[in-house]
Amino acid sequence: MKSISDNGLRGPVSAAELENMTGEIVTIHGMIQRIRRLGWGAFIILRRHDGLLQCVMGNEGNEEILDKLEVEQSVEVTGTVKKARIKDTSIHPNTVELHLDSIEFISLPAELPPVDMTKKVLDLHIDTNLDLRPLSLRHPMERARLKVAETLASAFRNSLTGMGFTEIRTPKICSAGAEGGANIFKIQYFDREAFLAQSPQFYKQMGVGIFERVFEVGPVFRAEPHQTSRHINEYTSLDFEMGFISGFEEIMSVEIAILRDCMEALKRECSVELEMLGADLPVISETIPSVTLEEAHRITKEISGKDNTGEPDLDPEEEKLLCAWSLEKWNSEFLFVTHFPTEKRPFYTMDDPDNPGTTLGFDLLFRGLEVTTGGQRIHDYDVQVEKMKAFGLDPESFKSYLQAHKYGLPPHGGLAIGLERLTARILGVDNIRLTTMFPRDVKRLTP
Amino acid sequence: MKSISDNGLRGPVSAAELENMTGEIVTIHGMIQRIRRLGWGAFIILRRHDGLLQCVMGNEGNEEILDKLEVEQSVEVTGTVKKARIKDTSIHPNTVELHLDSIEFISLPAELPPVDMTKKVLDLHIDTNLDLRPLSLRHPMERARLKVAETLASAFRNSLTGMGFTEIRTPKICSAGAEGGANIFKIQYFDREAFLAQSPQFYKQMGVGIFERVFEVGPVFRAEPHQTSRHINEYTSLDFEMGFISGFEEIMSVEIAILRDCMEALKRECSVELEMLGADLPVISETIPSVTLEEAHRITKEISGKDNTGEPDLDPEEEKLLCAWSLEKWNSEFLFVTHFPTEKRPFYTMDDPDNPGTTLGFDLLFRGLEVTTGGQRIHDYDVQVEKMKAFGLDPESFKSYLQAHKYGLPPHGGLAIGLERLTARILGVDNIRLTTMFPRDVKRLTP
Repeated sequence: MKSISDNGLRGPVSAAELENMTGEIVTIHGMIQRIRRLGWGAFIILRRHDGLLQCVMGNEGNEEILDKLEVEQSVEVTGTVKKARIKDTSIHPNTVELHLDSIEFISLPAELPPVDMTKKVLDLHIDTNLDLRPLSLRHPMERARLKVAETLASAFRNSLTGMGFTEIRTPKICSAGAEGGANIFKIQYFDREAFLAQSPQFYKQMGVGIFERVFEVGPVFRAEPHQTSRHINEYTSLDFEMGFISGFEEIMSVEIAILRDCMEALKRECSVELEMLGADLPVISETIPSVTLEEAHRITKEISGKDNTGEPDLDPEEEKLLCAWSLEKWNSEFLFVTHFPTEKRPFYTMDDPDNPGTTLGFDLLFRGLEVTTGGQRIHDYDVQVEKMKAFGLDPESFKSYLQAHKYGLPPHGGLAIGLERLTARILGVDNIRLTTMFPRDVKRLTP
Repeated sequence: MKSISDNGLRGPVSAAELENMTGEIVTIHGMIQRIRRLGWGAFIILRRHDGLLQCVMGNEGNEEILDKLEVEQSVEVTGTVKKARIKDTSIHPNTVELHLDSIEFISLPAELPPVDMTKKVLDLHIDTNLDLRPLSLRHPMERARLKVAETLASAFRNSLTGMGFTEIRTPKICSAGAEGGANIFKIQYFDREAFLAQSPQFYKQMGVGIFERVFEVGPVFRAEPHQTSRHINEYTSLDFEMGFISGFEEIMSVEIAILRDCMEALKRECSVELEMLGADLPVISETIPSVTLEEAHRITKEISGKDNTGEPDLDPEEEKLLCAWSLEKWNSEFLFVTHFPTEKRPFYTMDDPDNPGTTLGFDLLFRGLEVTTGGQRIHDYDVQVEKMKAFGLDPESFKSYLQAHKYGLPPHGGLAIGLERLTARILGVDNIRLTTMFPRDVKRLTP
């Protein structure tokens, strides 16, 4: 028998702590990101859990070890923390550096990287970048994008928790799809067929009956055959659903509050990453403008001359035009578009009693792209059953979902934000694969 | 064009706020959980986002509305907050109640619940409970179990973030399984076959090369055909992986720190739920005892007489005996068991150089059940390739995973905790389906 204790282990010294340790001797671990040999010795840039640390080692007595250094070696170094002024935005902390007395090798790679990982910008072809993902993500800028995405996810969670929402976890293996249509993955589930969740929609509505306000941060799966820069087949959906709403605009109001909290979190926690990536955070003003789909078509017609009146959705070109219009006219990089037609929205969407044929649903556009879909849902059992029938669906196959309505639901609604898309738009990245750790698309299942 | 503002909406008044609002008139929303008609009027218990609120209404002038009240109606009530002393542990806040002036109906259920939801304990057959999940989870005790699970997940996240870990999101659709074997779900992925992730193992190891310390809270999928009280086919895995470990016991030390943080979080945030559920939190002492598998077999043989020497794993009976032994002899409800044989652990597990044929892997037992599996992993490329071959695997099919080793990894290891199992053991619940919102098993795909 042995006794294991927690040893008071609370993690390696952080970048912020190092900045206040001038004069101290420290021993720390890291992987070698870059080496710069100079006449007097070398700069050795270590990759650590929370940033890159600049280490300095003179030649004297160290020639042998300096000659052995290569990128991606895992090392333990001991040295003295000294003041420095580092301009390289990829290095953090940038006010101190470590003057090394010793380097010990902990483990060595079997091969050197097949691409130059020491460049400021890793300008690989997207396929090479993704094929080499376990390596390419070690580049500071690639890693920084993931950090931004995680900070957004965490800010979404904190913002909603602060507004009385409860986090839930809903099944990803389902007996029916929430969004309908053919874009659903089939799975062999023991002796029958099942599906991968396209959205937690049904479950978060059930959640309204349980906790009144719920949210989920989790994977969703869409079997969309499009191979575009804005589609991946597995992505992270930031979902919430709330009861006792006064109308569908209350959901939009909550989204504004969340977005503001998200941008505040990025400013607070990702200043290093945002600077490294040259990202411009959007300003969330007091209000976000909102137009109906009909108005939206009228606006784009005025700008481009192309008449989309009557089209049930916006085309990608219109999304771009509308964002430019919103920025110029209302100084907002965000724009809500509401009142999509009934037939273009899922069966659980509530129709607008004042505008028959249209729904109390909305999209949020941001920098030329739709990043949110939301709306008010039907809460009345009979109304929902009737709409299912009108959509040619058999209410019997949605029996377990309809329990929520049958046994009572308050007026409610919610939305879903695509995390990778939002991150890409904030960072000005064209391809959402680059804001995904290991993206899945029609052609890609590895790494 | 309209302007949508966030209106300063920050959610409904909380239970804690209500406790400090004596004398104030408030208007709030809720769903009716229970009604008790008495000679003078009625107690109306409202279900809100964060607890149950006791409302009181006298008969005078209110007979008509009181006669219309039924459970699961969504209502808006206005009344005065008054001091109270409520002993019913399901009601929270319990120091105040609301004396109503008015009740307005917001929406009505189509049917009354088919089971009595007003009982103190919802003693339904498990199948009925699960068939009616959108309804049964509205019971305060059922809802409380989910709240405890979410608090654990959130404490796991906070604990690791505090130790310098980065949260990651890894793909659930994969080209190969991490755990091997037949217990994997197949999925039709466009024109080829793919699999559902049994674990984020490969990806979190890649994550060590990127962020040094990573964790994930997400779903995993196991096609295990067992229909037992401790198996479900989709569950939440609390995973972490850390680099630069001094040995595999460091992972166990970090787990102790996490468990301590989790129990502190439950005490702080779930006192109402724990009291309602009559749950006894385990004490995490300074240390947790640890025995090797060989020692474990010796101990169970001494207690029960049954000789399992040489068996490569513990059987369920042994897990119970060992937990009883640990509690009696070392006053610990937790027990680590280490050094499982090489052939019983996945190919990425590091062998113990001092004990050939055994691994630097461990399980954590808690109240008679395994709740964690972890260990040190192989970080050297050549060693990993050799072990794959020894296991009859083709390294070529793990090429993208092996990039992590090839381009360098520090010594590392990690673990996975089953959230639903840990919650069930803490709450003394026999069937883990009851600590899962919408469980999936061999027979169940709905709701």
